Amino acid sequence: MSKLAVAILGASGYTGAELVRLLARHPGVDIRVLTADRKAGQEMAAAFPHLSSLALPTLTSIGDVDFQTVDVVFCALPHGTTQEVVAALPRSVKVVDLSADFRLYDCAAYAQWYGHPHQAPDLQKEAVYGLTEFSRAQVKAARLVANPGCYPTCAQLPLIPLLTAGAIADEFIVIDAKSGVSGAGRAAKEANLYCEVTEGLHAYGIGSHRHLPEIEQGLSLAVNRRLEVSFTPHLIPMSRGMLATIYVKAKAGLKADDLRALLAERYRDEPFVQVLAKDVIPATRNVRGSNFCHVNVFDDRVRGRAIVVSAIDNLVKGASGQAIQNFNLMAGFDETTALDQQPLFP
Amino acid sequence: MSKLAVAILGASGYTGAELVRLLARHPGVDIRVLTADRKAGQEMAAAFPHLSSLALPTLTSIGDVDFQTVDVVFCALPHGTTQEVVAALPRSVKVVDLSADFRLYDCAAYAQWYGHPHQAPDLQKEAVYGLTEFSRAQVKAARLVANPGCYPTCAQLPLIPLLTAGAIADEFIVIDAKSGVSGAGRAAKEANLYCEVTEGLHAYGIGSHRHLPEIEQGLSLAVNRRLEVSFTPHLIPMSRGMLATIYVKAKAGLKADDLRALLAERYRDEPFVQVLAKDVIPATRNVRGSNFCHVNVFDDRVRGRAIVVSAIDNLVKGASGQAIQNFNLMAGFDETTALDQQPLFP
Amino acid sequence: MSKLAVAILGASGYTGAELVRLLARHPGVDIRVLTADRKAGQEMAAAFPHLSSLALPTLTSIGDVDFQTVDVVFCALPHGTTQEVVAALPRSVKVVDLSADFRLYDCAAYAQWYGHPHQAPDLQKEAVYGLTEFSRAQVKAARLVANPGCYPTCAQLPLIPLLTAGAIADEFIVIDAKSGVSGAGRAAKEANLYCEVTEGLHAYGIGSHRHLPEIEQGLSLAVNRRLEVSFTPHLIPMSRGMLATIYVKAKAGLKADDLRALLAERYRDEPFVQVLAKDVIPATRNVRGSNFCHVNVFDDRVRGRAIVVSAIDNLVKGASGQAIQNFNLMAGFDETTALDQQPLFP
Amino acid sequence: MSKLAVAILGASGYTGAELVRLLARHPGVDIRVLTADRKAGQEMAAAFPHLSSLALPTLTSIGDVDFQTVDVVFCALPHGTTQEVVAALPRSVKVVDLSADFRLYDCAAYAQWYGHPHQAPDLQKEAVYGLTEFSRAQVKAARLVANPGCYPTCAQLPLIPLLTAGAIADEFIVIDAKSGVSGAGRAAKEANLYCEVTEGLHAYGIGSHRHLPEIEQGLSLAVNRRLEVSFTPHLIPMSRGMLATIYVKAKAGLKADDLRALLAERYRDEPFVQVLAKDVIPATRNVRGSNFCHVNVFDDRVRGRAIVVSAIDNLVKGASGQAIQNFNLMAGFDETTALDQQPLFP
Repeated sequence: MSKLAVAILGASGYTGAELVRLLARHPGVDIRVLTADRKAGQEMAAAFPHLSSLALPTLTSIGDVDFQTVDVVFCALPHGTTQEVVAALPRSVKVVDLSADFRLYDCAAYAQWYGHPHQAPDLQKEAVYGLTEFSRAQVKAARLVANPGCYPTCAQLPLIPLLTAGAIADEFIVIDAKSGVSGAGRAAKEANLYCEVTEGLHAYGIGSHRHLPEIEQGLSLAVNRRLEVSFTPHLIPMSRGMLATIYVKAKAGLKADDLRALLAERYRDEPFVQVLAKDVIPATRNVRGSNFCHVNVFDDRVRGRAIVVSAIDNLVKGASGQAIQNFNLMAGFDETTALDQQPLFP
Repeated sequence: MSKLAVAILGASGYTGAELVRLLARHPGVDIRVLTADRKAGQEMAAAFPHLSSLALPTLTSIGDVDFQTVDVVFCALPHGTTQEVVAALPRSVKVVDLSADFRLYDCAAYAQWYGHPHQAPDLQKEAVYGLTEFSRAQVKAARLVANPGCYPTCAQLPLIPLLTAGAIADEFIVIDAKSGVSGAGRAAKEANLYCEVTEGLHAYGIGSHRHLPEIEQGLSLAVNRRLEVSFTPHLIPMSRGMLATIYVKAKAGLKADDLRALLAERYRDEPFVQVLAKDVIPATRNVRGSNFCHVNVFDDRVRGRAIVVSAIDNLVKGASGQAIQNFNLMAGFDETTALDQQPLFP
Repeated sequence: MSKLAVAILGASGYTGAELVRLLARHPGVDIRVLTADRKAGQEMAAAFPHLSSLALPTLTSIGDVDFQTVDVVFCALPHGTTQEVVAALPRSVKVVDLSADFRLYDCAAYAQWYGHPHQAPDLQKEAVYGLTEFSRAQVKAARLVANPGCYPTCAQLPLIPLLTAGAIADEFIVIDAKSGVSGAGRAAKEANLYCEVTEGLHAYGIGSHRHLPEIEQGLSLAVNRRLEVSFTPHLIPMSRGMLATIYVKAKAGLKADDLRALLAERYRDEPFVQVLAKDVIPATRNVRGSNFCHVNVFDDRVRGRAIVVSAIDNLVKGASGQAIQNFNLMAGFDETTALDQQPLFP
Repeated sequence: MSKLAVAILGASGYTGAELVRLLARHPGVDIRVLTADRKAGQEMAAAFPHLSSLALPTLTSIGDVDFQTVDVVFCALPHGTTQEVVAALPRSVKVVDLSADFRLYDCAAYAQWYGHPHQAPDLQKEAVYGLTEFSRAQVKAARLVANPGCYPTCAQLPLIPLLTAGAIADEFIVIDAKSGVSGAGRAAKEANLYCEVTEGLHAYGIGSHRHLPEIEQGLSLAVNRRLEVSFTPHLIPMSRGMLATIYVKAKAGLKADDLRALLAERYRDEPFVQVLAKDVIPATRNVRGSNFCHVNVFDDRVRGRAIVVSAIDNLVKGASGQAIQNFNLMAGFDETTALDQQPLFP
């Protein structure tokens, strides 16, 4: 079998490295191009010594890549820089974009939340939002997949089935989310220094995080009416991992057991979404390094409320793992290819 | 000035050690007795080498203490063991109890949440719940102060003024709380091993944590009607620190600015509660090792909702620091004595 | 191809779980038995929720296992308990023992360091010390492999080639070693609680660690004369990882470049030992979760001395990974089977 | 008593903040000036929210300070920038310099190790190297004190008494040192990001760290002959703390007990250097936040060798605490003023 020629743009960031780590075991992939504009000319092993056992192409600039020789591009570039890059690619190239640049269907909403006009509104029309478990058919047929954000993945996986089943109320959805530091990327910022992060936590982006419209878009489209949610992210002293604690109001006397059963039924055949047994609380360390999402539901003491908990690895199911899951669909591989590794604990 | 003879019961636990650390600088205190039943006969420096520069009494058993020679007892014993100990003390001894044994005014509620009948219901009647900022007069006159739990301290400090001012609705209070691991104590349990905790997080005690009735008691008494809240604690990979992210519904068109102003007014002269400037987000690392509580309020994007954030050090304002604050009042010292150290960062 | 029936004894510890994590991807293995005496009757997913996606046998007691149905046993039991267990196994069963029970060829030395007589001196005679890169032929033929300790693996891999080549002096070998906390196992001990370990470090077992005779045995056998080394282990606030900083005296004017070249030549065809490029410093995070050992050599400023640095994951190359490497040889699989995963970073 | 007017230059770095934290409790100090060129105009509470309860001057540029109104300057500026700043100060101002700019008595050695000529060789002549326990008389009389580096403090405190007593051999001193990340400062560098540091360790500056000549200068001057040492620093995933594990050769049959007794005698009346009891191993967490140095000595198994272990908080005894200790001497305060806080554990 001839392998697909893959380019990873933005390979010197954490999601780029994670794509390489996972694709290294993909039997149908040949990593042909790695770009990193600031580190162009370096070996990947200089940027990421943990990958030094792999034979990989030297880091190069995007401008130096001949994309005619590439079958698939994974874009792991900073938000706001991807639209023009993708627009310049040959139509023959399939794209999985890990940035936020194609996630909002509404270009006006994009402009409002990201502070500048959308640079490729025509491409936006063909972009498929790749929350894999809910868009398999479209992803298979897509040329351009907008890979979901980490928080939106973690929140939508449990909420969409509950909402579409009419099991919870629209007007009471509070998502308190917690993320590891790798979600902030590898850029050198004082706020992300070890000493600034370890042994403490804080909320950030309160009421204003850019994943908020993405979550609301997904939930609203699922039920075909406009939904609003409260959403607060927190920065936790850990590299990887994301937990969403979601407070909901159950409808019609439904209890946690009912909601769990509903989710278990929905995800019974899904390889990566695991609804845990009654009373087992999801923990980020149990999905670390893997593409799994662990979900469960608990009764609140306030009558009628339930608490939904969802855990992922933000760099895998929340970024590079889901990107490969989508790629597998687009390219005709088994969806789990290269994603069968168990979580790393401790 | 003659110093008060102080006994610390349960000195081999984290709150016990924290009492010693802080009281070491108290000019009116002579630490005369340290008990630790399992480690009786050891030097305190063997249990806590960080205190090895202090001249301290050898650890002893409670049964071997002559409490007639003691003026004040700090009880830092496990929950459920304190009622009988306190009941056996001479009436001349003042007590600050850091356990949960005297926090619930209603002995029936105690029995329900703690699984056994209250062992000292008469003492319960005289116990004063020592959330210092709201009970100064009673604490000054008290013989037995029930020192609040860490979560209840962190949640009540911002919520009580908002509720008593009628600024937020009773029926929508969601407290998503996060704690460092020292809150779980020093007992050797697999779940609290380094490898089980580092680089990950999870919720626990969902809908069933024992601090829930304590929070509801405090809020209900403040407004003189029965309140219910959603409350979920999480274990964070850090030794110290506690953050409460509280989702509320503001009344009558009030915005975050209004709620902040209300809190700022209430706490203007308080030495330990700091209402931060607009947009400054509380972080646990900014109160580490200190008796401060940092509070702020933010507008949610869902119209009418606000997000209140509160940070303390669970071992200080959430335990030993507030205990000393209460002791200072009971014994006639300036309330801030021995509590004037700045937070330790980084 | 029929799969080999594998039993893992001590499956509720970290090395047991790590064997399961890695063997889950081994095409020739069927995990048939998992034992854990204290947790017998529990599902493996209860002990290790990160493995909950796997279909695994229920945890059982060793006494309840019918070893006639088992082809291979991995022993991950505490030190001192394995000799009798292995002695009771049918001769048809091959054994990889991860404990220290069969690592010292000299039973008198064993008795001296471990405080009790060796319980199976006859078995000891047939045990092969499985530092794979130096004992392939013997391991292939072995029934019982004593899997090396983590520190001995980390220290011997760089030192043996340098000593056998006569490149460094016998009388000046100082091994300052640092380990993650998982090396201490999963037993609930106060000293290994999160709060006792995080954000600090200390040496332990100074001059008396049981890996010392194992290191000296390996080095002495390599050069066929009695060698002594200084060796001090340290506990580092991290779950996984081990680093050895080794101070040596180079012979005959040899420089770090010469020593590195010598190691590079020795390990050129080895799949798991990587001699890094000049000036690249090994770091534990670059081998985390993998079976790699990263090694390099640097000139000291004191003329004639060199500093050798070696990094492994203590749970993989230092325990379960090397055990599988040995198993692959014993069972005729490619040596790298199930060990091809890249390190997990960040 | 009128207070001394103090200026802290470089107040937005960790050592600057640590000076403020400690001096906040100094009864003889008025913090009059805080400089931070890049953050000039900001409040100190913006740079360091943990200090927000203090009334502090706004951050300003050095160029805007009227040093005629200042009694004492603490320089916490980056290495290489201090010589010119100090040279420009009025002679009436006393200076404690926390940078490396005045630590090497030999300006040629400075030029060699720091890569540029010394900018103030005349000032260098009057600078006193302030390892307090060994230079009290000179510090009291000094106008300019060069505050020792963290590694040199940690290594010299145990080694100088052993060397001057002739208890250990010159030719065998191996210092394997480990530091928390705060030693790298607050500059935003990729290498110091949380994700790059947590859960791993590595050596750095092997054979080339700039604290090496400082250590050798101090030891050589102590014994009045040229000494060389092996010295390797390591970066540990913790904010604060430093441990030196020092391998030495004892002379004339001396054992660890003899070396410990010698150190205990030397430091008996020192307030900050604690020689621990036999077998008690120093740990960084036991000195965190304090000005203590914990020291002990252990027998190696190699006959004639001993292992000395020394622990400090790199930001306190290794920087700002020792600076205040020196300042107290220069200004006539009790040496322990503002340094009496106990370590913070956990």
